[in-house]
Amino acid sequence: MHPFTQRRSASVAALGETGLIAAISRWLGPASPRAPFGMGDDCAVLPPCPGRLLLTVDPVIYGEHFDDKVPPRGVGEKLFKRNLSDIAAMGGRPRAAVVALALGPHVRLDWLEGFFRGLAAVSRRHRVPVVGGDVARHDGGIVATLTLVGVPAGPRVVTRTGARLGDWIFVTGRLGGSLASGHHYRFAPRLAEGAWLAGRPEVRAMLDVSDGLAKDLHALTPAGAEPALDAAALPCRPGCDLRAALCDGEDYELVLAVAGKTDGAAFLKAWRRVFPRTRLSCIGRFVRRGGCPAGAINLEDCHGFEHLR
Amino acid sequence: MHPFTQRRSASVAALGETGLIAAISRWLGPASPRAPFGMGDDCAVLPPCPGRLLLTVDPVIYGEHFDDKVPPRGVGEKLFKRNLSDIAAMGGRPRAAVVALALGPHVRLDWLEGFFRGLAAVSRRHRVPVVGGDVARHDGGIVATLTLVGVPAGPRVVTRTGARLGDWIFVTGRLGGSLASGHHYRFAPRLAEGAWLAGRPEVRAMLDVSDGLAKDLHALTPAGAEPALDAAALPCRPGCDLRAALCDGEDYELVLAVAGKTDGAAFLKAWRRVFPRTRLSCIGRFVRRGGCPAGAINLEDCHGFEHLR
Repeated sequence: MHPFTQRRSASVAALGETGLIAAISRWLGPASPRAPFGMGDDCAVLPPCPGRLLLTVDPVIYGEHFDDKVPPRGVGEKLFKRNLSDIAAMGGRPRAAVVALALGPHVRLDWLEGFFRGLAAVSRRHRVPVVGGDVARHDGGIVATLTLVGVPAGPRVVTRTGARLGDWIFVTGRLGGSLASGHHYRFAPRLAEGAWLAGRPEVRAMLDVSDGLAKDLHALTPAGAEPALDAAALPCRPGCDLRAALCDGEDYELVLAVAGKTDGAAFLKAWRRVFPRTRLSCIGRFVRRGGCPAGAINLEDCHGFEHLR
Repeated sequence: MHPFTQRRSASVAALGETGLIAAISRWLGPASPRAPFGMGDDCAVLPPCPGRLLLTVDPVIYGEHFDDKVPPRGVGEKLFKRNLSDIAAMGGRPRAAVVALALGPHVRLDWLEGFFRGLAAVSRRHRVPVVGGDVARHDGGIVATLTLVGVPAGPRVVTRTGARLGDWIFVTGRLGGSLASGHHYRFAPRLAEGAWLAGRPEVRAMLDVSDGLAKDLHALTPAGAEPALDAAALPCRPGCDLRAALCDGEDYELVLAVAGKTDGAAFLKAWRRVFPRTRLSCIGRFVRRGGCPAGAINLEDCHGFEHLR
């Protein structure tokens, strides 16, 4: 659906600010508690969170993260799930979200309703209330920004740092072709998987793949090392070649470093017991820089998604 | 400063994403701790916050909240301070911020540096680290969104709800002419004042004035009541008339309801002891609807700032 219309009666302008906020509250329904625990005051008030907090923010922007081909509900879902994926990558549990919307008066009301119903659906599914936000005028398109507060699901938070030379590299799900397949808004964030992995001491570091494996893997690679990836082991989405799996981006899968001395078969067996329907693949390991074996994928050719060029 | 340039070497496109993130980290300096407590991982990790949390989000948008007349540093300061003002209005203390930036490749690098140095200055002044964020491409202008996590400064959080018939209405500082005077980006958020007011049991409800007193006062007004404001008591900024003070918006001052039986002189005396340089004015009280005394300001004529019309 194209999000804009020149028909005033079908657009945001028909409601104005006060009417729009009332409509948003209706569209979100039980996903949005009342003030002071939700929308309607200067801040939202959250119940105490014992322990450390996780904080992450990601937007969806018209023309960049979605276009007319993505249904409005899918846009709302994508916005929420992109952020859930970041919480998943730390081994976290989401607690509350706020949404800031920048949009012009020509945005279609039915587009906006779909967007908020998408947010509400994810909110219900993962039991994460939308506790507040902001709506402001912006004549240059649609920018929706969601901030998520979370807590560690267990005693441990897994970061991108901690992988060592010799560690195995694993990835969840399949890679590549996210845009063409609609995976980029239909994916399920790996929250349960991330929490389970964070509880395994052999998992040393983790991140979620959003800009393509070839690019994002750099952040996991320890100093003096490089990833030696086995092309045959890479879980490509059906119809995707190796290059797509490495470079397309928007996979929202978890990539992790597993201690080199781990019994890989036992680790995979333990995984399958808990997640029988989700693939976990060992795709290579970190070797000394310059020591990549013949036949390993040459990552030099793949740059992944580069913003702002 | 106009934020855009067609000269590639002077724009964001010259750096690309990786270079830009390194530059942002440099511009923020000590305002931004390293991962996992700051930028560079999927989420930022915050130390435990005992008690409830406050969460608020507000953007600044080119053409809406700033233009070429506001220096880039002022834009960054405004973004941070708008959110601090929301924390102040609840009687809170800010703890950490994340910033999401949507901008095109034609944004001037020196504009962006000024913007982040403005954020860094406010961060240092109020000891609130910028712990993370996102930069994404958007060809429709500049949208910068900041989310702030805070905690109550004392045992009590003050909301917009709680005012009663007969309560006095007070306001900090002066009102009106915010855009013309530059107050809209030069203001100091009322954090110390908000924390002190939240500790006073006679303060029943509070908010910060951002869309103009006439409009924002509705949210404080108890059911069945209306505000009877005394024109002579309204603290207008020099050069501003009554209408400007009521309708201009972007004042970022605190408006509060004080229990009707309070000894106003003693309350003001206690205030002046702590805040000798900040004006606090009693501007009226909440009376029964339809019972406004002759001579009180007629608020029907003033609508304040209305977005999205």
